[in-house]
Amino acid sequence: MPVGTAGAVKAVPHDVLESLGAELILGNTYHLYLRPGHESIRHMGGLHRFMSWPGALLTDSGGFQVFSLSDLRKVSEEGVEFRSHLDGSSHFFSPEHSMDVQIALGADIAMAFDECTEYPADRSRAEESLRFTMAWARRSLDHFRTYRKTVPWFTESTGQTQSLFGIVQGGMYADLRRECAERLVEMDFDGYAIGGLSVGEPRDLTLEMIAAVLPLLPQDKPRYVMGVGYPDEIEMYSRMGVDMMDCVLPTRAARHGLLFTSEGRVNIKNRRYAEDQGPPDPACQCMVCRRYSRAYLRHLMQAAEPLSGTLNSIHNLAYYLGIMARVRQSIEAP
Amino acid sequence: MPVGTAGAVKAVPHDVLESLGAELILGNTYHLYLRPGHESIRHMGGLHRFMSWPGALLTDSGGFQVFSLSDLRKVSEEGVEFRSHLDGSSHFFSPEHSMDVQIALGADIAMAFDECTEYPADRSRAEESLRFTMAWARRSLDHFRTYRKTVPWFTESTGQTQSLFGIVQGGMYADLRRECAERLVEMDFDGYAIGGLSVGEPRDLTLEMIAAVLPLLPQDKPRYVMGVGYPDEIEMYSRMGVDMMDCVLPTRAARHGLLFTSEGRVNIKNRRYAEDQGPPDPACQCMVCRRYSRAYLRHLMQAAEPLSGTLNSIHNLAYYLGIMARVRQSIEAP
Repeated sequence: MPVGTAGAVKAVPHDVLESLGAELILGNTYHLYLRPGHESIRHMGGLHRFMSWPGALLTDSGGFQVFSLSDLRKVSEEGVEFRSHLDGSSHFFSPEHSMDVQIALGADIAMAFDECTEYPADRSRAEESLRFTMAWARRSLDHFRTYRKTVPWFTESTGQTQSLFGIVQGGMYADLRRECAERLVEMDFDGYAIGGLSVGEPRDLTLEMIAAVLPLLPQDKPRYVMGVGYPDEIEMYSRMGVDMMDCVLPTRAARHGLLFTSEGRVNIKNRRYAEDQGPPDPACQCMVCRRYSRAYLRHLMQAAEPLSGTLNSIHNLAYYLGIMARVRQSIEAP
Repeated sequence: MPVGTAGAVKAVPHDVLESLGAELILGNTYHLYLRPGHESIRHMGGLHRFMSWPGALLTDSGGFQVFSLSDLRKVSEEGVEFRSHLDGSSHFFSPEHSMDVQIALGADIAMAFDECTEYPADRSRAEESLRFTMAWARRSLDHFRTYRKTVPWFTESTGQTQSLFGIVQGGMYADLRRECAERLVEMDFDGYAIGGLSVGEPRDLTLEMIAAVLPLLPQDKPRYVMGVGYPDEIEMYSRMGVDMMDCVLPTRAARHGLLFTSEGRVNIKNRRYAEDQGPPDPACQCMVCRRYSRAYLRHLMQAAEPLSGTLNSIHNLAYYLGIMARVRQSIEAP
């Protein structure tokens, strides 16, 4: 899933996303709640209509951003009090409130409100965090089942309602992760995510946590690893049975000049590309690789041209979505 | 002509420019000379190939940017010594050097090296500036005729060579402007521009200068007013017989949230558009107006999303190019 934090995949027009085959993009509840506000978006017919995106949308719970971006005030059984990173204003998110916001946004897939355990965290801290996450998962689900809407709002209803995924936490403790997974599966969510990864831990630990949890999650429901990863990681995880992933990496790295290619990572700012007239990735057929040279993309970075972020992002998304297309193909015709 | 200062129309991918019907874009010699360097671009087959733009390209002489951007050191009969606005390095532009740079860039249309008279300027200053401009025009033309190349370099040659336009200066003195125009026409350029306008003078003075000069320029050669203007101006000037104009306004204003529409100027940052679900311009059929709402474009500005500059620029260019398309249509079928 390309990440469209504030209701836009950074620097990439929607029609380009569609031509790349993006069917599902992610919006961040925390950002959209603060600006333009979920009530405003609800009033305009939901996020699909507001941003003019007829494809599917997933919203996160807001929990991760509250922990990573805001000036966090206080976590209690009830929820989280925090200050906006935009203007310092005070806000409170409870599981029920997170559900209300995501229902108002009209997401096809909403996420249970969780507490993302920081890394490193000792066992007692991971256990405490897990208690919050499991209690909040229950409350999220109860509230969501009562108030969820049909999706999307702006076309004739198909009768389909919003879905809610639970999020497995537990820090880097496999037994806590397994316990969390089992309890969430008992609650019967529409899908399951593994959260709290890619928070600074070594890669083999990420892998170990995914391997520990994945077999416990139902195969007939979507299994989603949040916030990963590098191209080789998303391929590896999907081979393990992961169905969904999201990451800002392809677009964020692109804006800093890092291209993912079949020949490895290319830092397009490097002087060696100054007169390199070859395409960014000789094996790639995306609209950027078909038209523009490494020398030109390097020049756009050097000149701080806004087109730079757009073209680099388009290539990186094409590269990521291409990996997933090949994975799907190899599942269909093994 | 959309302006592509550093070899890119800011924030707008080439395929979008093509779909908008842009056939000729402008690159700034001063910027491209400093970065990535005209020798580097020549080495890569010229600006068309470097930026992957098969349409036509016009380069300015570098004179205007030397005066407006650089730390100007010294103007002499020989040329202009200046310091780069990028790194303070010393450079020297003579008419011959400006021609060499523009020939190296491979522009379809190059511009004679001129001195842009500042506004206000008293008569003696305008006369002095005009002497430079006319002497430099002669030297530009002689050098250019000797060294110009076929265009474009990267496809099979059509046998067509680069063209050079002369630039009428003379400050806000109609008689000086007329004298300049007559002398340039005697030199027999491939086309003629009126420069040194839109430098801070009142609009009726701009109009007066254009009206004074235009009848003296051959009707069977392109007549180009540089650096204008607002939508009503470009329509008015083209009705007076102006064939070409360039301006950063549609793209620069777009990045600051100013949209040009059939209903007048729209400052999309205005709070009144926060929940306005109408298109930016109800009368416009561009890809932005067909898909996105004012509320969404306002949100993108508020959230400082890079997509904002792209979408706003696309609409403004569509609006400008639409005006010119209607002008051409009314010439063909009056």
